[in-house]
Amino acid sequence: MIKVVFFDLDDTLIDTSKLAEIARRNAIENMIRAGMPVDFGIAYHELLELINEYGSNFNRHFDYLLRRLDLPHNPRWIAAGVIGYHNTKISHLKTVRGVKRTLLRLKEMGLKLGIITDGNPVKQWEKILRTEIEDYFDEVLISDFVGVKKPHRKIFEKALRKFEVQPGEAMMVGDRLYSDIYGAKQVGMHTVWFKYGKYANKELDYLEYADFVIRSLEEVPEIVRGLNDEEEERSDPEVHAD
Amino acid sequence: MIKVVFFDLDDTLIDTSKLAEIARRNAIENMIRAGMPVDFGIAYHELLELINEYGSNFNRHFDYLLRRLDLPHNPRWIAAGVIGYHNTKISHLKTVRGVKRTLLRLKEMGLKLGIITDGNPVKQWEKILRTEIEDYFDEVLISDFVGVKKPHRKIFEKALRKFEVQPGEAMMVGDRLYSDIYGAKQVGMHTVWFKYGKYANKELDYLEYADFVIRSLEEVPEIVRGLNDEEEERSDPEVHAD
Repeated sequence: MIKVVFFDLDDTLIDTSKLAEIARRNAIENMIRAGMPVDFGIAYHELLELINEYGSNFNRHFDYLLRRLDLPHNPRWIAAGVIGYHNTKISHLKTVRGVKRTLLRLKEMGLKLGIITDGNPVKQWEKILRTEIEDYFDEVLISDFVGVKKPHRKIFEKALRKFEVQPGEAMMVGDRLYSDIYGAKQVGMHTVWFKYGKYANKELDYLEYADFVIRSLEEVPEIVRGLNDEEEERSDPEVHAD
Repeated sequence: MIKVVFFDLDDTLIDTSKLAEIARRNAIENMIRAGMPVDFGIAYHELLELINEYGSNFNRHFDYLLRRLDLPHNPRWIAAGVIGYHNTKISHLKTVRGVKRTLLRLKEMGLKLGIITDGNPVKQWEKILRTEIEDYFDEVLISDFVGVKKPHRKIFEKALRKFEVQPGEAMMVGDRLYSDIYGAKQVGMHTVWFKYGKYANKELDYLEYADFVIRSLEEVPEIVRGLNDEEEERSDPEVHAD
């Protein structure tokens, strides 16, 4: 009997990768408009490399971009980049298609909901609050607070304890086969791989840990209903025998 | 003959203090809405004290606010504060009344214009770009790049060199008697004190360095015209004798 459904945040509930791509493009365009003398393609490629090397939470991307492009330090161009990036972040931050409908349906079915995510806690909460999905969730678990990253079992175990459920009563939905699906399966949860975004064809070595593979979140309520109906039949043999 | 007019940025061209006040109020309100269990007045007062002690460019205001209020660290409340603050910053950032009209008039009179400001270069450029005043200015001088702060004479001397003018050919307009007016007067510029905002009644010991005191920026073109007409008459005695 599934009692709790956990969701990953980035690229499961919120379209983070798509947002980041648009924001980065707008940043570069704004820098060029402010006078940065570089071809768009070259600057964008260099920015992606930089993010790849330094990580997406590095806060001096635009400074370093100028260095890599052999350009002088220019706060005007950097400011233009920051403005382009932030304006996009605020106007384009969106939930993945079908999220609100899915969450509402699960709540109507009487389920508890949680988020299990990695990342900077303040930035993760910013996404949750800006997209106004906070009220659907009973708990938000951020791995930083446990001092680990998914797929470490500690964060999944903590999630189960918080909701006082057994692993078999919980389901994890996420876009990453390694961190979400393998992670949740280790502690015995049901797993649903959301084949979406930039990890849709990655980490396939861990495919065996996915109980279900979906391409739309709106399949989640059906899966839960299916599992719970099945179990009800099994535990109620008289009804079954009718 | 005035050839260049320099302006300070914060609270002269851009309504920074008013903006910061609204942004801080909205941040606290948003934190309370997100569940922070504190009275608005208490939290706001504590935030002002904190900014006073750590400076306005400190980037952990909301973290430290929770510590000072003896509350647990809560990324949700911090994120709510960040959202409230940033949304305000973007929607309320405005030039001071009359700025664009004044700048346009000065350009029509054939003057060169510059900005002389302290502060974080990227943040200062963000304000200039967001309010769309960049095209009026021939140079933006930020003291950080010279390694000093106003009223250090180095930044004013650099400004004069950039425009290749004598001190008597330049005018400084700013809201701070100490950093703007005393600073510019040290190197021999004409000075116009804009008696406005939170420094309207402060640093009065330096009042003697102000050649003019104005309450509206729209008085600047008249002052320049007055000085330039006067000088023309003096240097052209025949016309004067008519």
